[in-house]
Amino acid sequence: MKNTFSFELQKTDGAARTGVIRTPRGEVRTPAFMPVGTAATVKAMMPESVAETGADILLGNTYHLMLRPTAERIDRLGGLHRFMNWDRPILTDSGGFQVMSLSGLRKLTEDGVTFKSHIDGSKHVLSPETSMEIQRLLGSDIVMCFDECPALPADKSRIADSMRLSMRWADRSRAAFGDRPGHALFGIQQGGLEEDLRAESAEALQQIGFEGYAVGGLAVGEGQEAMFGCLDFAPGQLPVDKPRYLMGVGKPDDIVGAVKRGIDMMDCVLPSRSGRTGQVFTRHGVVNIKNARHADDPRPLDDTCRCPACRNYSRAYLHHVFRSQEMISGMLLTWHNLTYFQDIMQGMRAAIAAGTFDAWEADFHAGRAAGDIEPL
Amino acid sequence: MKNTFSFELQKTDGAARTGVIRTPRGEVRTPAFMPVGTAATVKAMMPESVAETGADILLGNTYHLMLRPTAERIDRLGGLHRFMNWDRPILTDSGGFQVMSLSGLRKLTEDGVTFKSHIDGSKHVLSPETSMEIQRLLGSDIVMCFDECPALPADKSRIADSMRLSMRWADRSRAAFGDRPGHALFGIQQGGLEEDLRAESAEALQQIGFEGYAVGGLAVGEGQEAMFGCLDFAPGQLPVDKPRYLMGVGKPDDIVGAVKRGIDMMDCVLPSRSGRTGQVFTRHGVVNIKNARHADDPRPLDDTCRCPACRNYSRAYLHHVFRSQEMISGMLLTWHNLTYFQDIMQGMRAAIAAGTFDAWEADFHAGRAAGDIEPL
Ligand SMILES: [Zn+2]
Ligand SMILES: [Zn+2]
Repeated sequence: MKNTFSFELQKTDGAARTGVIRTPRGEVRTPAFMPVGTAATVKAMMPESVAETGADILLGNTYHLMLRPTAERIDRLGGLHRFMNWDRPILTDSGGFQVMSLSGLRKLTEDGVTFKSHIDGSKHVLSPETSMEIQRLLGSDIVMCFDECPALPADKSRIADSMRLSMRWADRSRAAFGDRPGHALFGIQQGGLEEDLRAESAEALQQIGFEGYAVGGLAVGEGQEAMFGCLDFAPGQLPVDKPRYLMGVGKPDDIVGAVKRGIDMMDCVLPSRSGRTGQVFTRHGVVNIKNARHADDPRPLDDTCRCPACRNYSRAYLHHVFRSQEMISGMLLTWHNLTYFQDIMQGMRAAIAAGTFDAWEADFHAGRAAGDIEPL
Repeated sequence: MKNTFSFELQKTDGAARTGVIRTPRGEVRTPAFMPVGTAATVKAMMPESVAETGADILLGNTYHLMLRPTAERIDRLGGLHRFMNWDRPILTDSGGFQVMSLSGLRKLTEDGVTFKSHIDGSKHVLSPETSMEIQRLLGSDIVMCFDECPALPADKSRIADSMRLSMRWADRSRAAFGDRPGHALFGIQQGGLEEDLRAESAEALQQIGFEGYAVGGLAVGEGQEAMFGCLDFAPGQLPVDKPRYLMGVGKPDDIVGAVKRGIDMMDCVLPSRSGRTGQVFTRHGVVNIKNARHADDPRPLDDTCRCPACRNYSRAYLHHVFRSQEMISGMLLTWHNLTYFQDIMQGMRAAIAAGTFDAWEADFHAGRAAGDIEPL
């Protein structure tokens, strides 16, 4: 495979898009959902199993990895792909978002952020330059600009100031990233829910020029309606010929609504985190496996699902191992949830290619509205 | 496959034996190590992976399963094999040992044991008759007699009384088991470390007649030397043409010493429990993965091991995910430990068949004496 990074937009259906990202480590079919491998593992899953669900690309968390085992150690060990036994593409975030949500005492300046580790209290600095260096050491295929994401709601002037800081940091990120054939740097649009600020941010990013563009600063508590309102204009402000990534999204209906509005990539901890807490996503909505109604139910979670949890086990078994706090519970339910999320993506890719996205979406919502199968 | 249970002794080398147990659910190559699937799962493992390690048979715990999800529920759901997605043979213990070690308030009479669940305090009775019924509902292929196992050290008269009670219970177990083609009932020899009591127990069991015989009441704290001392005579008191099962053993050198003394089957939680606590068994002895010496070590746990932990990951990675308390740590280390235990069994089977057990054993001990590879 050539040592280049490229995106081919293959078909649109309304605002929805399907295409393929090509990297030296393989192709990513879009729209794509990226499972999250925070600490160099998608929790409860073997990487071979993650690939089996249909994932083409994983997300790694710079904040977690820089603290433990450290980027320098991962570099010495041959990079994140080899370290975690995942040879397909990896996208790493910049660390900025998680510094804000997880770390202790921190100080934000024009230069960057100084913070204390949530693990051992040690002091660290993240800036556009250090974030680029850490992501280079990790060896990620898609590197994210270091940015600041203000919590919503916030004053428009606070959002504007933050967005402009992020744009200056985007410029420094681009410079620090340097020339790395086969690797991509994505800019991150900010501007809250404000159309004019989003436009200003998109313009600033395009002046710099990136291999892809993220819609940042959403899915931070604003609610689906507000998020969709922003996605009605934000993706359209970004270049048509580059991938568009919506960070940290989301629930199945968030994902479908985002793709409908022109998003190509997403990531979220929801399918794996929910798998460990017994919350299961199916085409008939959410199933809570700890509910006593499943205790004697010999039926699978979803009789059309191809995952091992559905092919080989009853709801009664899944209920039993969840209640018994057995590890296989998190393993099986995560496997199911990741499979379901990937099946949604595959369904949307096929529907967009066929020009039948609206019918697919109606069917998706009808299935969810029908609710879970009746108890026996 | 015929609906019968049989044992074929194929070769001996000294007291060590190799053969095959044939059941309607498949063959068990002996000497066999049985991973423990306490609550209808071998902790941290998919059953397909357990099979891949080379396990022909699992052990299920009657005490745990009768309390949750209950034997009646498992029966309604088609039996333990279907419930836990393991179609090969399963041996279940009688519940007696774990009633003594885990349950609250209990009362022992000639009839059986009344006890309170450690989960919810509910009251239950285990007796030869109820244990046979529960193991029938579970659908296990090899059923164990209900017996009493006194803690050691104990007075010889206490051990004798307990053994004779167990022999009366063995008689009742045989009667309650009934006629179940393709299923086996194993008697359990008791008598502590006393050769005459062991002989009396073996004789009593043979008068009743069983498809296999367990050496019970060992591995309860007496130490390896005392256990081997007992195994120097106990297996020889049992019929030559039936499988001999040593319950709850053990560490790798316990297993090798037991096979050397004529044992055909064993079970232990050690490889899976240790996997979750970071203790790894290798041909060079025990490795503690949480030790800082592994943090930067790019080498596998054991470069000759065929398991995924050794084929695909560095010690540095295994150290990292253990320290980060990631589930994949328990998954990979359990997989390794179970693989190593099965490889020991396969090594012994081949050596006994070839008449080279002594050389194999010397090599086994030499590898362990060499210790782990030097730190980098
Ligand atoms: Zn499924
Ligand atoms: Zn291994």
